[in-house]
Amino acid sequence: MFHGLSAFPLTPLREGKFDEQAFVQLLRPLVDAGVDSLGILGSTGSYAYLTPEERTHITRCAVAHADNIPVSVSIGALRLDDILRLADEAQSAGARGVLLAPVSYQRLTAEEVFTLYETVTHRISVPLCIYDNPATTGFEFNDELLYAVAALPNVKSVKLGRTPDNIAHMRARLPESVTLGISGDWRAASALQAGFDVWYSVIAGLYPQTALAIARAKDTAASDRLAPLWALFRQYGSLRVMAAAAEMSGKVAAPALPFPLASLSGKPRETLAAILAELALA
Amino acid sequence: MFHGLSAFPLTPLREGKFDEQAFVQLLRPLVDAGVDSLGILGSTGSYAYLTPEERTHITRCAVAHADNIPVSVSIGALRLDDILRLADEAQSAGARGVLLAPVSYQRLTAEEVFTLYETVTHRISVPLCIYDNPATTGFEFNDELLYAVAALPNVKSVKLGRTPDNIAHMRARLPESVTLGISGDWRAASALQAGFDVWYSVIAGLYPQTALAIARAKDTAASDRLAPLWALFRQYGSLRVMAAAAEMSGKVAAPALPFPLASLSGKPRETLAAILAELALA
Repeated sequence: MFHGLSAFPLTPLREGKFDEQAFVQLLRPLVDAGVDSLGILGSTGSYAYLTPEERTHITRCAVAHADNIPVSVSIGALRLDDILRLADEAQSAGARGVLLAPVSYQRLTAEEVFTLYETVTHRISVPLCIYDNPATTGFEFNDELLYAVAALPNVKSVKLGRTPDNIAHMRARLPESVTLGISGDWRAASALQAGFDVWYSVIAGLYPQTALAIARAKDTAASDRLAPLWALFRQYGSLRVMAAAAEMSGKVAAPALPFPLASLSGKPRETLAAILAELALA
Repeated sequence: MFHGLSAFPLTPLREGKFDEQAFVQLLRPLVDAGVDSLGILGSTGSYAYLTPEERTHITRCAVAHADNIPVSVSIGALRLDDILRLADEAQSAGARGVLLAPVSYQRLTAEEVFTLYETVTHRISVPLCIYDNPATTGFEFNDELLYAVAALPNVKSVKLGRTPDNIAHMRARLPESVTLGISGDWRAASALQAGFDVWYSVIAGLYPQTALAIARAKDTAASDRLAPLWALFRQYGSLRVMAAAAEMSGKVAAPALPFPLASLSGKPRETLAAILAELALA
């Protein structure tokens, strides 16, 4: 489930509602390209902004169009009871794995985070990926907590938004059955070269061939050619950039994101258009 | 509406559901003590963890038991359409003011935050308080954005979790009709002495007489006597501390907070009990 290239598509909205037709059309090229898994309803898929009912519907839709490619789903929410319900519904809807970030309003303590994962991992029967994303959760795993959570049953991957100082040391402390995954597309090629097992990829959600070429060859030179795109990702957030790219391509309606989130506009949007044309991604 | 002492009570849960009876019993001493307003469903009132339906119900309940004391309600949510709906329902339920923090999963940009407040302030007919709380939202207002938002119609207060370097300068830049409010109980007395107009107070939600005595006299010495309590607030978060105090008093059922949030337990809870006894707050 959690290896190779996991593609994270947008969840396009149309007038604030899930646009199923556009979503299916976003999924098709990912399936045709043969990505290793579909990471739907990730941060790029706006999971936090959708109701449990919408999330279940979107999961069913993705599974129906995924052919044999496994689908993983983020089950994060503020309340534990909502997370457990989302976990149950994701599994019923055919998800073959779940991602869980310690979503917060009140920043969580390490004890609260451990108890959260302990409760969820005992409830589920599919593999879980620990999703460490301090930029969205405000919570940063320290290494000891990460190892403790990774040792819980059903945990099969870690999605890290950083490259640890000593990857070999981290691997040695993680259970053998737990894969090490990278997020933050700009650091993915070098992370794969350094021994990461899986790239949780935003660009693969829109440009699967480009991402597959980088992932299969662990091709840092090919990744470096995308540096102008990575610069926009870092400055504006990959979600705002990819939403603008999808809007400009006509694949999704504008605005594709839920207010108050806004895709790139004005000058940065023009810059993006020029970069995509230059990189032949438009 | 937004002046003097605004008391922020807990929203107690019982087995994960709103405990109306306990809530009413928490409100009564605040009303009897004569706080200047009730800030229900603040961060201390766990607003982010409750459904819109629960929030409307809780607002009606508070208004019904507030006598003539004005009730303000937080209307924050991740999606603008939810915020607008919450604003409408808060007003229909009798709230005389609303608080709005730029709640986020994806950290918002300054432009997104301005558009958010612009849209909301044009929709409402009651006063709004800008709620700047980077610890929960991940978003920090810079001064220019704060002044721009404060100039929008219906904005009548700012709830700041910091004391600006130059209060006189900030006052001069804010519209005259906008009051300056402090949150973070440990800094409130000195902020009031330095010219703040309103204390958005967590301890007033459980110990209104103590808070009123400090607020009315701007009594930093009285505040300093609570230093051991402030130390716990800073270390564990005021919500976890107040929830433990309320649980220990028997006024609310345990656990009063929504999982994964947990009130103080173990040694810190014992420390709190000793502090409350020493301060005659137990």
